Amino acid sequence: MNPDLAWAVWCGERQRRIEDVLARVLPAADLAPIPLSQAMRYAVLEGGKRMRPLLAYAAGELTDAPADRVDSAAAAVELVHAYSLIHDDLPCMDDDSLRRGKPACHVAFGEAMALLAGDALQALAFGVLAEGRLAGAARACALLADAAGVRGMAGGQAVDLSSVGSTLSQLELEAMHRMKTGALIRASVRLGAACGRQLTGAEAAALDAYAGAAGLAFQVVDDVLDVEGSAASLGKTAGKDVAQGKPTFVTGLGLPAARKHAAALRVEARAALAPFGGAGRRLAELADWIVLRTR
Amino acid sequence: MNPDLAWAVWCGERQRRIEDVLARVLPAADLAPIPLSQAMRYAVLEGGKRMRPLLAYAAGELTDAPADRVDSAAAAVELVHAYSLIHDDLPCMDDDSLRRGKPACHVAFGEAMALLAGDALQALAFGVLAEGRLAGAARACALLADAAGVRGMAGGQAVDLSSVGSTLSQLELEAMHRMKTGALIRASVRLGAACGRQLTGAEAAALDAYAGAAGLAFQVVDDVLDVEGSAASLGKTAGKDVAQGKPTFVTGLGLPAARKHAAALRVEARAALAPFGGAGRRLAELADWIVLRTR
Repeated sequence: MNPDLAWAVWCGERQRRIEDVLARVLPAADLAPIPLSQAMRYAVLEGGKRMRPLLAYAAGELTDAPADRVDSAAAAVELVHAYSLIHDDLPCMDDDSLRRGKPACHVAFGEAMALLAGDALQALAFGVLAEGRLAGAARACALLADAAGVRGMAGGQAVDLSSVGSTLSQLELEAMHRMKTGALIRASVRLGAACGRQLTGAEAAALDAYAGAAGLAFQVVDDVLDVEGSAASLGKTAGKDVAQGKPTFVTGLGLPAARKHAAALRVEARAALAPFGGAGRRLAELADWIVLRTR
Repeated sequence: MNPDLAWAVWCGERQRRIEDVLARVLPAADLAPIPLSQAMRYAVLEGGKRMRPLLAYAAGELTDAPADRVDSAAAAVELVHAYSLIHDDLPCMDDDSLRRGKPACHVAFGEAMALLAGDALQALAFGVLAEGRLAGAARACALLADAAGVRGMAGGQAVDLSSVGSTLSQLELEAMHRMKTGALIRASVRLGAACGRQLTGAEAAALDAYAGAAGLAFQVVDDVLDVEGSAASLGKTAGKDVAQGKPTFVTGLGLPAARKHAAALRVEARAALAPFGGAGRRLAELADWIVLRTR
């Protein structure tokens, strides 16, 4: 099979796999209270690129973990991601009404139910991880908590809030994104890898360097697409960062330099995988996908 | 020492202890992003009765767990409780501006920062529990996730939302409160007990019956105090359930029957502790405290 086709098959298989896992761990659509169960399913299922689960599965392959041992980690990071999108879209935050090509959760279910759906999804993420087939589930929960909390995603979102209308240096902007999106992306890779054989210290550092570069590349491309893309292609409101006066890599660097930066980060991410040889293939392809994507 | 005095000393010691633990596990007030760290500390420290931590410590004494092994469980349940109060007070939920005798978190820090503070506190709760000195930390995380999620606290809050303006039978009302406040109270007792010797199945069931009755008693008394109390004594807005058209034990039963119901639940909670003899003393005193409290 040619490499592009093999990648597409791998990717599609894992995307279907995580969809099944998520559908199973989410509350049934008829579980009381029904509006909450439905809001949770609405916000998670049928949508999203599943980048974080793909990173977890790819990192699991690097450490020879069978996919069924990675399922809980892959689901947990996607549940945290989905909860963060619900809360980010609320009127008191980014006030966005379109997400993953459909009305945002609070538009469909009301603000209060959307808030609760996000809260319940975060709890579910930890529950799934704690009950997973992972050796060291407690350590995994601690890692996810750190990535989601004040030193990670929530902290990055707070910096983002405070930065509206101000200018950040590129270093400050990168620091913010390392928390806001980077922390959960790194956790996805680390949790997936933790499902298999133990890494040496040097290997763990290399993997972390990969995840840091890939995570930052993801954000740079996100900023480029926010300017270049349309709501139809993105499935979310385009141009909103600029409209909200948020500092982005495009406002900071300009469009051509932002594109170059993303390409350089792709090279950096791939280079970090060198110690792993062929075992890093899927992660390398994911770095390509992150940078070359159009949505 | 007479029993009342001994209880007051025990209670005061544990309240000071959990305050220290919480102050230590929360992000330092000068940790960036500072507004988020401060909002988290504001919502958790210097306030609250610390009923859930007290239940965890008392249940830990029942199983001979030293207090320092219970600390992480006690902190985790209080962090979940504090996050839920922040989110409940938001304008899109109960829209309340007074909490624990001071302006609600969103009044002090803005809605967006309050939302994030709640989110980060939930993550912190799981982090603290996962890193705690508890054998079976992963199982503890799974238990807390269940208590906080769609089958527990968040689910109960969703039922509560949907019930505004409608009438619930007493059974429906009790079912709602078993989720909304009862699940976390039961988790507090179970997590505290799990820090010590293993319980027999019969003992675990007895302890769960205690927690169920005590949790329901807490809610009935809350409804009574909402009618009888003042904002000054409660530290939160009085009369708000009635003002918001929420079904309560007082609207359902009337004030005298609600008081009687609380007294009966106190007897039920104490009776459930019979198998434990003297080891259940602190839990019995907590049931008294829950029913006889005036705030």
